[in-house]
Amino acid sequence: MIKIGIAGYGNLGKGAELAVRQNPDMKLTAIFTRRSPGSIKPQDPTIPVKHISEAQDMKNDIDVLLLCGGSATDLPEQGPAFAGMFNTVDSFDTHARIPEYFNAVDSAARTGGKISVISAGWDPGLFSLSRMICQAMLPQGSDYTFWGRGVSQGHSDAIRRIKGVRGAVQYTIPVEDAVKRVRSGENPALTAREKHLRDCYVVADDGADKEAIAYEIRNMPNYFSDYDTSVTFISDEELKEKHSAMPHGGFVIRSGSTGDGSSHVMEFSLKLGSNPAFTSGVLVACARAAYRLGREGQTGARTMLDIAPAYYSPKAAAQLRGEVL
Amino acid sequence: MIKIGIAGYGNLGKGAELAVRQNPDMKLTAIFTRRSPGSIKPQDPTIPVKHISEAQDMKNDIDVLLLCGGSATDLPEQGPAFAGMFNTVDSFDTHARIPEYFNAVDSAARTGGKISVISAGWDPGLFSLSRMICQAMLPQGSDYTFWGRGVSQGHSDAIRRIKGVRGAVQYTIPVEDAVKRVRSGENPALTAREKHLRDCYVVADDGADKEAIAYEIRNMPNYFSDYDTSVTFISDEELKEKHSAMPHGGFVIRSGSTGDGSSHVMEFSLKLGSNPAFTSGVLVACARAAYRLGREGQTGARTMLDIAPAYYSPKAAAQLRGEVL
Repeated sequence: MIKIGIAGYGNLGKGAELAVRQNPDMKLTAIFTRRSPGSIKPQDPTIPVKHISEAQDMKNDIDVLLLCGGSATDLPEQGPAFAGMFNTVDSFDTHARIPEYFNAVDSAARTGGKISVISAGWDPGLFSLSRMICQAMLPQGSDYTFWGRGVSQGHSDAIRRIKGVRGAVQYTIPVEDAVKRVRSGENPALTAREKHLRDCYVVADDGADKEAIAYEIRNMPNYFSDYDTSVTFISDEELKEKHSAMPHGGFVIRSGSTGDGSSHVMEFSLKLGSNPAFTSGVLVACARAAYRLGREGQTGARTMLDIAPAYYSPKAAAQLRGEVL
Repeated sequence: MIKIGIAGYGNLGKGAELAVRQNPDMKLTAIFTRRSPGSIKPQDPTIPVKHISEAQDMKNDIDVLLLCGGSATDLPEQGPAFAGMFNTVDSFDTHARIPEYFNAVDSAARTGGKISVISAGWDPGLFSLSRMICQAMLPQGSDYTFWGRGVSQGHSDAIRRIKGVRGAVQYTIPVEDAVKRVRSGENPALTAREKHLRDCYVVADDGADKEAIAYEIRNMPNYFSDYDTSVTFISDEELKEKHSAMPHGGFVIRSGSTGDGSSHVMEFSLKLGSNPAFTSGVLVACARAAYRLGREGQTGARTMLDIAPAYYSPKAAAQLRGEVL
């Protein structure tokens, strides 16, 4: 049995608790939190909850620690700190800072003799894997990534920071016509606006100037000004009832041609009922890989690009060859 | 530069010649054939063509030998024979015999201190990879593979063996409604007939009994009797004009649920203008992986399940982390 620890009990940590149960070769040893441990109620009440400062005392009781904190502030600190003590898996997703984060975790993990899988999940993660594999197999071509329909936490947060906004959810939606053109092998050049729509559901404070809020959203640089953005004001109740789920997904498409002039389209797509629930399933499979790499004596940081896929599976290599090849 | 050799100059070997040119870190050293070398005209006339019996003399001039023969008779003999002398890549695709073939090649490659990637391509190959990864990430769910629209050589050959048939091409076509149901997350149980149609274009000898031929096709066990099969008789000219391309493709879909009850659909699909041209691109990327694994001193047989994806890419690990993650 692979002994798993979870650090951070938000949406991802909760998903990870359930994901461990779907994998019979694993058991959950403990949940660690920065909050008061008594305030955390795991879905399985028999799982010990401890303060994160106690994690290091359990170094020898945990094979892989899943770091389920956020990329903005938690992981840049926790990733390198825990990588020296535990085999770790995280979903660090600030794309531009991945090289720097990789180096920090790699150095800590090598010093500690541990293995760390960073930036696991679906993007970065499975989508990165698809982009890389498709590029290598079809070297002459173009890549496209479409996201959605799904909730973007970053964009929702940006709306919530506007004065007079009490709640907001933003859906990123791929433009169907653009997806169709890419799938047809047309290789179109597409602007941000041509690829995605932004659909916002906003709860305004009583008496707030809704027109001003909508104007501020639509013209917000980086987040919205380069997109066609629709803004709909709704009630607190409607936000809670209709916009609490966290669906997401998207498409990675590579379209290109081989030396004989024939055209090919490769596509990987995800349609996820719950982004954190699915992502935690990926983290748990990466934990299995980390465990095995660690048992081989490997150390340092890895991304999903560096891991032979068979390490993710509970099945032995010979069984996989018989069943899935 | 990675020095590539090609053994076998049929559709796949021709595709491999062109695929090497799309990869600037590779060069083609020689083509080997069982036919008279003078009868082979490579697309680049400067490439040496030699009889396959001379391959072993070039052991030290070739980093990876691509075995482009067929799975029925060529590879079971050539695979283990060449694996002792060269790093090799092949597309052995008789699914049921892969474990046995793996063992034979593995043993030869270990003895010779070489590395062999077997069963590379898209199915087995990229589709196997998708099935395996999706199963590991979403352990509770169902797998579906649809093939087509594409030419099945095996089914085309089976028709051509019927008395009175002079030429034939069979297209495997996924049933759209079945694909739609699977994509919706419905997890349907589907029979062979519900998943694929078989569409046959046949040239009959003058005076042959077309009704009898059509009856024999539709009722052929294993190949056609379990499917809805349409048979259209056409002329030699039409067969050549409209059915000489070798398109193929398909979909690997996994549909399942996580512990919170939410549903997820993962899909990998290919739409290939030319099956052999695309497949040879995969073989060439696998050659890069074999070359690198060999340089690390690894030996034995591998499948695409056993290879860390970064090995396929000409880009260095740090560059990949910056670009595709």
